[in-house]
Amino acid sequence: MNIEKLPTQQENFSEWYNQVIQRAELADYAPVRGCMVVRPYGWAIWENIQKALDQRFKETGHVNAAFPLFIPMSFLEKEKEHIEGFAPELAIVTIGGGQTLEEPLVVRPTSETVIGHMYAKWIKSYRDLPVLINQWANVVRWEMRTRLFLRTLEFYWQEGHTAHETAQEGQEETLRMLDVYADFAINEAAVPVVKGRKSESEKFAGADTTYSIEAMMGDTRALQSGTSHNLGQHFAKAFNIQYLDRNNELQYCWTTSWGLSTRFVGAIIMAHGDDQGLILPPRLAPIQVVIVPIYKNDEEKAAVLPVAEKIEKALSAFRVKLDAREEMTPGFKFNDWELRGVPLRIEIGPKDVAKEAVMLARRDIPGRDGKISIGIEGLAEKVGDLLVEIQAALLQRATDFREAHTTTPSDYAGLQEAVQNGWALAHWCGNPECEANVKEDTKATIRNIPFEMQGESGKCIICGAPATDKVIFSKAY
Amino acid sequence: MNIEKLPTQQENFSEWYNQVIQRAELADYAPVRGCMVVRPYGWAIWENIQKALDQRFKETGHVNAAFPLFIPMSFLEKEKEHIEGFAPELAIVTIGGGQTLEEPLVVRPTSETVIGHMYAKWIKSYRDLPVLINQWANVVRWEMRTRLFLRTLEFYWQEGHTAHETAQEGQEETLRMLDVYADFAINEAAVPVVKGRKSESEKFAGADTTYSIEAMMGDTRALQSGTSHNLGQHFAKAFNIQYLDRNNELQYCWTTSWGLSTRFVGAIIMAHGDDQGLILPPRLAPIQVVIVPIYKNDEEKAAVLPVAEKIEKALSAFRVKLDAREEMTPGFKFNDWELRGVPLRIEIGPKDVAKEAVMLARRDIPGRDGKISIGIEGLAEKVGDLLVEIQAALLQRATDFREAHTTTPSDYAGLQEAVQNGWALAHWCGNPECEANVKEDTKATIRNIPFEMQGESGKCIICGAPATDKVIFSKAY
Ligand SMILES: [Zn+2]
Ligand SMILES: [Zn+2]
Repeated sequence: MNIEKLPTQQENFSEWYNQVIQRAELADYAPVRGCMVVRPYGWAIWENIQKALDQRFKETGHVNAAFPLFIPMSFLEKEKEHIEGFAPELAIVTIGGGQTLEEPLVVRPTSETVIGHMYAKWIKSYRDLPVLINQWANVVRWEMRTRLFLRTLEFYWQEGHTAHETAQEGQEETLRMLDVYADFAINEAAVPVVKGRKSESEKFAGADTTYSIEAMMGDTRALQSGTSHNLGQHFAKAFNIQYLDRNNELQYCWTTSWGLSTRFVGAIIMAHGDDQGLILPPRLAPIQVVIVPIYKNDEEKAAVLPVAEKIEKALSAFRVKLDAREEMTPGFKFNDWELRGVPLRIEIGPKDVAKEAVMLARRDIPGRDGKISIGIEGLAEKVGDLLVEIQAALLQRATDFREAHTTTPSDYAGLQEAVQNGWALAHWCGNPECEANVKEDTKATIRNIPFEMQGESGKCIICGAPATDKVIFSKAY
Repeated sequence: MNIEKLPTQQENFSEWYNQVIQRAELADYAPVRGCMVVRPYGWAIWENIQKALDQRFKETGHVNAAFPLFIPMSFLEKEKEHIEGFAPELAIVTIGGGQTLEEPLVVRPTSETVIGHMYAKWIKSYRDLPVLINQWANVVRWEMRTRLFLRTLEFYWQEGHTAHETAQEGQEETLRMLDVYADFAINEAAVPVVKGRKSESEKFAGADTTYSIEAMMGDTRALQSGTSHNLGQHFAKAFNIQYLDRNNELQYCWTTSWGLSTRFVGAIIMAHGDDQGLILPPRLAPIQVVIVPIYKNDEEKAAVLPVAEKIEKALSAFRVKLDAREEMTPGFKFNDWELRGVPLRIEIGPKDVAKEAVMLARRDIPGRDGKISIGIEGLAEKVGDLLVEIQAALLQRATDFREAHTTTPSDYAGLQEAVQNGWALAHWCGNPECEANVKEDTKATIRNIPFEMQGESGKCIICGAPATDKVIFSKAY
């Protein structure tokens, strides 16, 4: 562990973010510009995210599959908006097996096209519908400005791709998966999110409508944390995904796609972390409980270590680690595990052993206030309760923080001021020009049009025209 | 389901293989030559393989991470044998974000080089060793002749990469992971395998020594099913993976790598399948038990279906599916699930309901012999026992088949004859020329030098020179 202090979030949030990732060994820079190596501790968080999502996908009737990494360039060109959106970001294979390829291959930036091609082959009749497939995959987008987890050339995600008989079923699926994402974010990651529709200028290239969940980070910026797209019949028409309906007539399918990526690891870091480092929500933390034995000599060690080991066993229902490293002081270990965001620390020294007790230290409440001495008897149950409590406290804190940094300015000057340090809720007439003006004046964008505020009528905060949508304006990652 | 009959294995094993994969919906051809789409049923097998292996990797102290897809061309060139071996098979990205790249990027064919680069950065001292990391990833090798699962341009695998303090620890790790593969193959996939060392001409490009597990397929050909490489200090020297030892002196690490891929799905298909289709080992089968209700009219349906549903619930500890499709006959369903290799079928009709019994049909024993009528009471336990029995029977059958098709010819003519339909065990002097002669004369190669036969002395079956190694000669996939 690096012994220099982290910069505080106040001093430099961006530098705090970079250093936390490096020092906690979540990820590192790869030798290729903009690519990342996800290190074991970071990957373990992603694996826990995968489990939590995969279970929800299966409960909603989806199955996993694997579609190819390479897509013929001509496929992307079949949907006009799609290729316009992705063309600037493509990585292209032009040589294979020592030969120049006749048709260049795109390294998938997303898989609507190649999956559309396969669905056209597989789907014949309404009896084959719905098709509900997800894949866990790596994708590549040639981004110019990159940040670990938030925006990298290669990233990891899941992409769901579904095909339906009717427009209504497509829309239901789109919103169902948005709900799945929100449920995951709130209940697994303790990250409060706002569900809403994206404006036309921010929607997915090729979608009818894009929906997102948006979260507020510790510097008040927004992070789009998951998206669900109603693709209408755009890709069905481009790839001829047709089926014979109940009247034996050929119809185009209605398709959707939805994705959540390793970007979400960035959301967890920035939504919960503090000046000491990461704070991981217990449900996704690779290590939920760390046990640090405290002793000054061999005699004390002989008294303490066996009890620490017994406690480790008693807590085997949790993801528990006994830190028995010899070459480090307890103080060093405390800092190290705080940096790594382990939600609960158990300290045990000779006095604790004598009392048949341990000291519990909550990561989310620094110092004395977060410490409780507790009897060893029934410890597992108490630890379980405390982890639930920490999970709830993180969600509450992030929600309070968001509310404290969300305002409803009454005029354009107020909006410009508000988005300097928070979210602003305001009416928007729907005109892309008004949206563009805000971006130019403040760098803030419309994050989404929250469901809960749709239909509230008022006047556009930019141009004064009548407006039926209230939206979130914010700077964003 | 296609209603034409499958070709028999005898008629055309290769065509049987292709058709089983397509009809059972395990995989399909992607629009890019040589690439595959792994369909949900095939991917579910791979996910079960992943779980079984991942658990073993974690039990042996390994953690997962993710390294980048793109590797600078110059990295591959740092290890001479490595680039020589892989150069003809590379897919190369030359354009990114609309610009021609200064240095072309290789789509990883394997990750020793980029992981070596990162290890050089992370490893400082003997205290950092061993490093025991695995990744689940897609890799690309530009193969000219491809077969679904067996050899595709893109495939899925895990690749373990470890770094050690001593040569001995490296060798121990190499053999430990070979043991893990063998244990997995035998006890999860019911595929008997022979552990051994590869000859110099068949070893991994850049390895000191390669070890493999080899399995016999249903047409008697061998399939290399997993490999473990002792890389010596080749990559440590090429990438400067150094550590300060206990005497504070700089040393090169000893590294290993080991991999098992979606090829193994091909092994399962070809080791167990029969003329009716797949036979999946219960421990890896996506569906272990299928329930087919049998009725001729609404009255019978009203009697049968609720009982079938009750049985489905009673068997919830297993991966169970109730096939309640209305538009298909029971006979069609029997064939369909036989094709898909479900290990155990439960048939239940009005007479069974009256008797409070069901009919169990084993996939591994066709027809009457595999059927047992059994009481519903305590069914879950009986099903559990039967799945264990089927698993063991598959392993036994594959082992018997291998033994029946393995001979020990006494002269070269006998060897040439033997490898036409089986494995031949024979002494080999170690001379690559003798090995090349066999390949030219028979298309058979040395699969490996089995551990169990090492040190048996005799005479080379090709040239008659003294030989200490007895090897497996066989045609191979
Ligand atoms: Zn306006
Ligand atoms: Zn010889």
